Amino acid sequence: MSPGTVAVYYGGGKLRVLDSRMKMIEVVLRCAICAFGVLAAALIGFDSQVRKFFSVEKKARFTDMKALVFLVIANGMVASYSLIQGVRCVVSMVNGAVLLDKAMAWAIFSCDQALAYLTLAAAAAAIQAAQIGQFGQPELQWMKMCNLYEKFCTQVGEGVVSAFLVCLCMVTVSSISAFNLFRLYGKAKGKS
Amino acid sequence: MSPGTVAVYYGGGKLRVLDSRMKMIEVVLRCAICAFGVLAAALIGFDSQVRKFFSVEKKARFTDMKALVFLVIANGMVASYSLIQGVRCVVSMVNGAVLLDKAMAWAIFSCDQALAYLTLAAAAAAIQAAQIGQFGQPELQWMKMCNLYEKFCTQVGEGVVSAFLVCLCMVTVSSISAFNLFRLYGKAKGKS
Repeated sequence: MSPGTVAVYYGGGKLRVLDSRMKMIEVVLRCAICAFGVLAAALIGFDSQVRKFFSVEKKARFTDMKALVFLVIANGMVASYSLIQGVRCVVSMVNGAVLLDKAMAWAIFSCDQALAYLTLAAAAAAIQAAQIGQFGQPELQWMKMCNLYEKFCTQVGEGVVSAFLVCLCMVTVSSISAFNLFRLYGKAKGKS
Repeated sequence: MSPGTVAVYYGGGKLRVLDSRMKMIEVVLRCAICAFGVLAAALIGFDSQVRKFFSVEKKARFTDMKALVFLVIANGMVASYSLIQGVRCVVSMVNGAVLLDKAMAWAIFSCDQALAYLTLAAAAAAIQAAQIGQFGQPELQWMKMCNLYEKFCTQVGEGVVSAFLVCLCMVTVSSISAFNLFRLYGKAKGKS
């Protein structure tokens, strides 16, 4: 279903075309968030590496760093949430419904905002932890670990990149839901 | 100037009352951001502690942790930005002007959003670094430092709390600027 067809179906108004385009973009973004979120959580959650130091075996896991645990949980949450929201978007596209309910728009806006900030906070904390893991913090005698657990660190890096893509999409989606909410308070309506 | 007087001056419309209230809130928030931002940057930037380990003197400074440097820079930036924006708000309140220029609204919205995410990322990274400093990460042989540099850590903690307040205000302000922007695209206008 191209945006053009939707516009005709809707009656050809400028607003309708904009609405259907926005909804298409929103569906694509929500699907991307879901995919990248699952990818990030899986890459980091299933990451482990065993190394032998003389006779001692040591295993690196994501649970060794609280920031990575937080990242896995946040990305799992945002992926599940985006799946639900994606289904809602598709259903409203098929029905041709336009979001006019303020309570619903407020709920979506609030959740999107909260999750955008949550995923960003999780990614920032993970990047900080990963940065210490990669380069160490010699002033504090925190030694870098990534020379020992190279495979583990590479996979964490891939997960963090994926989580960063989740953030970008989530930020865009939360702007779209802000648009959907606040245009309900349009200037033209308020004139007394 | 109370919101009531402004409403009368504006003509008494519901929208005008809402507008003047929002502007008041925005000014208060922008001033709070400026104050807390300067406080956070100062608390962390001027924090240092010297300790003697046997004959070796060691100095803890915020530059020992990249996350704290990032936090100081981010809070300095957001404080300066909020000062400028606060002055703009006050001027537009005194003039009784309503923001109707889309380009300007987009610029303010984009800057607010960017700085809200930036301050949050900086705070999250600093909290992660502070958490390692406070509790260590024994699995990775990163030892806690805060038992050695107690005064330094307390002050960093105060700075982080202040930075967190900046985040909260910045998130609220960015919602207000989203409101100011997107209601310009009000539904009522778009009907063809």
